[in-house]
Amino acid sequence: MTATTAGGFDADTRAARAGDNEYTATVTDRWNALGGTANGGYLLALCLQALRRDMPLPDPLAVSAFFLRPGVPGPARVRTEVARAGRRFATGEARLHQGGKEAVRICATFTDLARAAGRTLVRNAAPLLPPPDACTDLLGGAGMPGVTIAERVEYRFARVPGWWRGEPGGELTAEFWMRFKDGRDADLPALALLVDAAAPVVLDIGETGSSTLQLTVHLRARPAPGWLACRVTTRHIIDGHHEEDFEIWDSGGALVAQARQLAALNGDGTRHRTP
Amino acid sequence: MTATTAGGFDADTRAARAGDNEYTATVTDRWNALGGTANGGYLLALCLQALRRDMPLPDPLAVSAFFLRPGVPGPARVRTEVARAGRRFATGEARLHQGGKEAVRICATFTDLARAAGRTLVRNAAPLLPPPDACTDLLGGAGMPGVTIAERVEYRFARVPGWWRGEPGGELTAEFWMRFKDGRDADLPALALLVDAAAPVVLDIGETGSSTLQLTVHLRARPAPGWLACRVTTRHIIDGHHEEDFEIWDSGGALVAQARQLAALNGDGTRHRTP
Repeated sequence: MTATTAGGFDADTRAARAGDNEYTATVTDRWNALGGTANGGYLLALCLQALRRDMPLPDPLAVSAFFLRPGVPGPARVRTEVARAGRRFATGEARLHQGGKEAVRICATFTDLARAAGRTLVRNAAPLLPPPDACTDLLGGAGMPGVTIAERVEYRFARVPGWWRGEPGGELTAEFWMRFKDGRDADLPALALLVDAAAPVVLDIGETGSSTLQLTVHLRARPAPGWLACRVTTRHIIDGHHEEDFEIWDSGGALVAQARQLAALNGDGTRHRTP
Repeated sequence: MTATTAGGFDADTRAARAGDNEYTATVTDRWNALGGTANGGYLLALCLQALRRDMPLPDPLAVSAFFLRPGVPGPARVRTEVARAGRRFATGEARLHQGGKEAVRICATFTDLARAAGRTLVRNAAPLLPPPDACTDLLGGAGMPGVTIAERVEYRFARVPGWWRGEPGGELTAEFWMRFKDGRDADLPALALLVDAAAPVVLDIGETGSSTLQLTVHLRARPAPGWLACRVTTRHIIDGHHEEDFEIWDSGGALVAQARQLAALNGDGTRHRTP
């Protein structure tokens, strides 16, 4: 199913052309993350949906986003620029402004994945998970106050993370299923949102959240319809900065997105002693 | 030793101010990679050295570079822009042009790592290598024709990779020591070059090389002086596109840089059958 749903991904990332390389859009309050501001992946996808309209190649392949200010519900302008349009690869940039101030800047290289014809060799495997119906729907209709993105995205866990039960277990890796709740299948721009749509694994070491500074998404293949198997890992928390690696595998068992973000733990930086 | 050497990192990444947010520089032929064009990490570092002069905070923390055209020996212009200057983080962009055409675009967030005071928790370890003097100097003064970067950077391997002996062994991970040959210790801009300074591990599956499209570097701590322990891994080669992950650990055993690049295998994409 790929229908556009009110309050769905397509409606909420739509940009209206307002001139050459200029778009208007609305940041909705329907994709808010922990902390009550717009999810970074949502803002990235909003920029990407505008940018792809000006690019001569269809598929975002490598996208880097820098988050300069929190996104707030309300009007936004997106300005795009094509930096280079080659035969195989094209690169462009988009900047999202709200109230005259820049909130997000993305740069992205596009290609036509249908024409990519090189070698394939994968030394990794999709998460080994029971079928989605045998897993626990993390929210189960409960919702998380203010975290509206959890009303749009469904998460199914084989092992519910400790932090969710109020008992952080120190696990810095999580594996789970994910999909849009309205049944819309993921395409590449949707994957660019979804790599940032889960709660950060640092919650399981007792942290209250973290803020994304920079996010790189490599979109490696067009995803097959259906549930997405996800693996998220943090290995290095250093002086309050940490990376988070995110893999998404499609229902056919192919890696479709690989992302890494650098984030800063919330809090005053003095609550925790270095172990 | 941090002296500036002719043909060294400092001299070859120097930018001269030519106006507000405008620099002139020279792309030297002393950092050429496989294929005879300027190494991507070198061009990134050249942009970064110009950009950091305009940033209000000292340490590049997250840098993303897009490679639009090959860098060639000769003059270049670098134009910088400060996108946002906050108290804790500041973000800017730099674009390197040659002959009126843009070759490289970087975006970077800076901070003051000396003031970063949050939690530290690392679930990974530095490569376990014999001391550098007990390892093999890969080039041993031999050099690789045209690959001038190998005259500036020294590589010490415990196990010499198969491809080097003409017998690719299918290893997509490598661990080794690295440093500048002239003895200059690495700082953060130097690390941003070094994460791209080694031969790609895909050589060990019989590939002849690959071209970096996009490179993200997270600079996690100011490195201690001395040799750098490196770990490089490729796990997903899909239709000719592959990531390469690069970690650099300093002589004190701290992770100081974590990088990922997306690259495209050279060749016509039809030489290899999908295994």
